[in-house]
Amino acid sequence: MSDPSAGRRAVCLLSGGLDSATCLAIARREGFECHALSFDYGQRHRIELDRAPALARSLGAASHEIVRFDLRAFGHSALTDDIAVPKSRDEKQMSAEIPVTYVPARNTIFLSFALAFAEVLGAADIFSGVNALDYSGYPDCRPEFIRAFETMANHATKAGVEGALRTKIHTPLISLTKAEIVRLGHELGVPFGSTLSCYDPDPSGRPCGQCDSCILRARGFDEAGVIDPVRAV
Amino acid sequence: MSDPSAGRRAVCLLSGGLDSATCLAIARREGFECHALSFDYGQRHRIELDRAPALARSLGAASHEIVRFDLRAFGHSALTDDIAVPKSRDEKQMSAEIPVTYVPARNTIFLSFALAFAEVLGAADIFSGVNALDYSGYPDCRPEFIRAFETMANHATKAGVEGALRTKIHTPLISLTKAEIVRLGHELGVPFGSTLSCYDPDPSGRPCGQCDSCILRARGFDEAGVIDPVRAV
Repeated sequence: MSDPSAGRRAVCLLSGGLDSATCLAIARREGFECHALSFDYGQRHRIELDRAPALARSLGAASHEIVRFDLRAFGHSALTDDIAVPKSRDEKQMSAEIPVTYVPARNTIFLSFALAFAEVLGAADIFSGVNALDYSGYPDCRPEFIRAFETMANHATKAGVEGALRTKIHTPLISLTKAEIVRLGHELGVPFGSTLSCYDPDPSGRPCGQCDSCILRARGFDEAGVIDPVRAV
Repeated sequence: MSDPSAGRRAVCLLSGGLDSATCLAIARREGFECHALSFDYGQRHRIELDRAPALARSLGAASHEIVRFDLRAFGHSALTDDIAVPKSRDEKQMSAEIPVTYVPARNTIFLSFALAFAEVLGAADIFSGVNALDYSGYPDCRPEFIRAFETMANHATKAGVEGALRTKIHTPLISLTKAEIVRLGHELGVPFGSTLSCYDPDPSGRPCGQCDSCILRARGFDEAGVIDPVRAV
C-alpha cells in the first residue's frame, strides 16, 4: 500500500470560493474520498452556493451536502447584515483590525457540523481552506484555533472517546500566500471560472472588484502570473 | 457591589427539558440577564420546542431565540432517524455503552451557536444543563469535553483573542444526580409541568414512560420525594 489515504473518507468544507476549491483538490490529490459540505447561513453573497454543487462534481467529490441555518438572527456582520462591505481598502487597513465582515464563531460552527458529518461517515479527516496569512484579521483562521478545535473534537465524539478515530483538521492553505494558492490550484486544475470570492457580488454573480476579498484575489492572480477567468473589469 | 454577576448577560441553552430549565433558573439566581437559545434540528421529540418559549418567559429570560437546522441530512441517531428509541432498559444497560439516541457532535454544534450568540451580545457566560452522572453515555456531556470547548472558544472569537472577554461554559448540573436536580429545580420554582424530557412522546406531548429519559426522570422525582406533574401513568 503506497498511499495510506486511499479509500479513506474526508469531509471537505466548500464555500464555492477559490481557497476551499483548491483545498478540496488537495484532498483529492492525497487520495481521499471527499464529502463536500457547504452552508447556507444567510450570507449576502449567497450566490457562491449556486456554484458549489458544480464545483464539488468537477473536483471529484463523492457527495455534497448543504446545511441550512440562519445567522442573521444573531446579526452583527457585514456578511449577513445590512452593514456595508468595506471597499477599496489597502493592505495596511486590512491588517489593522478584525474586519466588519467577521461573522461571530463562523468557523467554529462550520467545523462542528463537519465533525458531525465526519462521525456519521466514519471519517477522521476534515479539510478546511482557512488561510491565516493574507487575512490575519479573522481569529478563527489561525493555527492556534485549529489545534484547539482538534483537541476539543477528540473529546466530543463517540469515535474519538472510544479511540476508534483520531480527528484531524487539515488546513493545507493556512500559511500560503494568495499567489501560492492560485499557483497550486492552477497545477491541480481547479476550475477558477466556477469559483466566487467576492463578498458583495451583483445579482448575476459578477464580483464587485473592490471588497477585500476581490482585492486579495486579484493580487494573488497577478503575483502568480495566472489569468483569472472571472476577474472584474 | 455584592453580586458581580448583576446585569451581566449569559446565553442559556434551553431544550425544554427538566435539566436545561433548572440550569436557566440557576443562571437567573446568580443574577445573570439570561438569553435563552433553543434548537430545531429535526429531533423526533420536536414537541419539546413548543414548551421552550413559555418556559423561557416564566423563568425570566430576557430573550429567546430558536435556531433551525436539519441534522437528519447526516442521520444516524434514534433522536432524528427512524431508528427505534430503546425502551424499558435497566441502569446497567444504560451505562454499558453510548446509546443509539446519541446525536453526533450535537453539544459541539449547540455550544458553537451559543458562542456566536454570546459574542454578539457581548456575553462571556454560557450555561448548559449537561449532566455526566446519570447519563455517562454521551461523550459530549463530560467535563473533559466542556473544558476543551472552553479553551477552543477563547481562541475562536474576536472578543476572546482581543482579551476583552474570557468565555466560561457553566455546567452547574454536570455532577448532580437526577434527584439533586429535581430538588434544586423544586427550590428554584421551576415549572416542572411545562418541561418535557421524553425521547418519544405521543403527538399530544405525553411522555412514553419507558425511554431512558423517562425512566431517569421518574427515578429522580421518586428519590427527591417530589411529585412530577407530567408523570406518565
